[in-house]
Amino acid sequence: MSSTAQQLAALVSAPPAPVKPGAMIEPVVIDNGVAYISGQVAFDGDAAPLTGQVGAEVSVEQAAGEAAKAVANGLYRLADAAGSLDAVERMLKITVFVNSVAGLTEQPQVANGASKALHDILGDRGRHARSAVGVASLPLGVCVEVEMVAKVRV
Amino acid sequence: MSSTAQQLAALVSAPPAPVKPGAMIEPVVIDNGVAYISGQVAFDGDAAPLTGQVGAEVSVEQAAGEAAKAVANGLYRLADAAGSLDAVERMLKITVFVNSVAGLTEQPQVANGASKALHDILGDRGRHARSAVGVASLPLGVCVEVEMVAKVRV
Amino acid sequence: MSSTAQQLAALVSAPPAPVKPGAMIEPVVIDNGVAYISGQVAFDGDAAPLTGQVGAEVSVEQAAGEAAKAVANGLYRLADAAGSLDAVERMLKITVFVNSVAGLTEQPQVANGASKALHDILGDRGRHARSAVGVASLPLGVCVEVEMVAKVRV
Repeated sequence: MSSTAQQLAALVSAPPAPVKPGAMIEPVVIDNGVAYISGQVAFDGDAAPLTGQVGAEVSVEQAAGEAAKAVANGLYRLADAAGSLDAVERMLKITVFVNSVAGLTEQPQVANGASKALHDILGDRGRHARSAVGVASLPLGVCVEVEMVAKVRV
Repeated sequence: MSSTAQQLAALVSAPPAPVKPGAMIEPVVIDNGVAYISGQVAFDGDAAPLTGQVGAEVSVEQAAGEAAKAVANGLYRLADAAGSLDAVERMLKITVFVNSVAGLTEQPQVANGASKALHDILGDRGRHARSAVGVASLPLGVCVEVEMVAKVRV
Repeated sequence: MSSTAQQLAALVSAPPAPVKPGAMIEPVVIDNGVAYISGQVAFDGDAAPLTGQVGAEVSVEQAAGEAAKAVANGLYRLADAAGSLDAVERMLKITVFVNSVAGLTEQPQVANGASKALHDILGDRGRHARSAVGVASLPLGVCVEVEMVAKVRV
């Protein structure tokens, strides 16, 4: 395995399941060298993401780990769409939506799980702008969702 | 009426009202072939959008219908800015903000109302990346807001 | 001081602190003439942003003022990254995340604080598309966070 493949494998046990025929959304859309990656959650191969709100059922540390898994899934999707992660020139911007109890202030610490995974896997190409916000609820009840925009070689 | 016009007319009874002089925001900004469409809500001509939270006053099915109306309004705005929907090469990315009660997990089902409208109206050009999240509240108290980024011919 | 510098200085007492070495995120990433600016909050030089939820501890008017300060910080960051605000051709899109009590409907009035600051400082170049949403909580407990995407001369 390449170093990159090993790093992804250290975060999640398998790539995300193939998109079902007839799915309403694309995992990744690439236009003019910019890849828009659909919001990702922390599937770990077949295992479901951790559910619950950060500050209640889920700790900040657990959610940071889930954010890293969401990034790994997104990078698998991006590699599928772009041919390989070697085609990724730069991560441009990520948005981290944290399922938060009222009053939670540690969305950045959760988001750092995503940012660190990008740095670890992509090196300097992983440096990015970021927003992190606390939301009321998320699909499937997951604790964190990560969306990404990347520059890819076309 | 063209087929596209008929499909928009089936979703909302009239195009959204013209932007007032002196408005603080633009409905659409186009740069280098990328159109950024302001967050849209489900006005139906002059009729106000449905208000309330999904999971309380509003059902998932109702909110999916409102998401489709929000898309129709956004496509009217985009057609105004780009000359016609024929100029739309591809929907790139949408974000669906769902006004959700705590614990709601069906944001994707709401967002499917937006995605299906895009597929129905734009065909393969309507395929897109997407994020869907649950938020605490939305402008005017509406149940769903949709923002879109599209590729247009320049 | 130039007119622009005076306008920024009227909003915040000093530019935001330099990014710390080893920070996980970039304040701004520029690719192909598009600048992605990380989510900004209302630091006023060394002074912390106003915390609390709009509709409870913080009024709509106060939050609009904080949104303007967040914009000023973002423009300082953008000027650093692009060389000067003269390099900014157009503000393309902003997203305003408002820390909102349940049922708040005035996110647009809060967001107008950000939009007005952009118009005042950048003139016609400040005209933009926008989304405004209410979120459950924000980093540091701030009442508003603003992210921006701008066109810059490269």
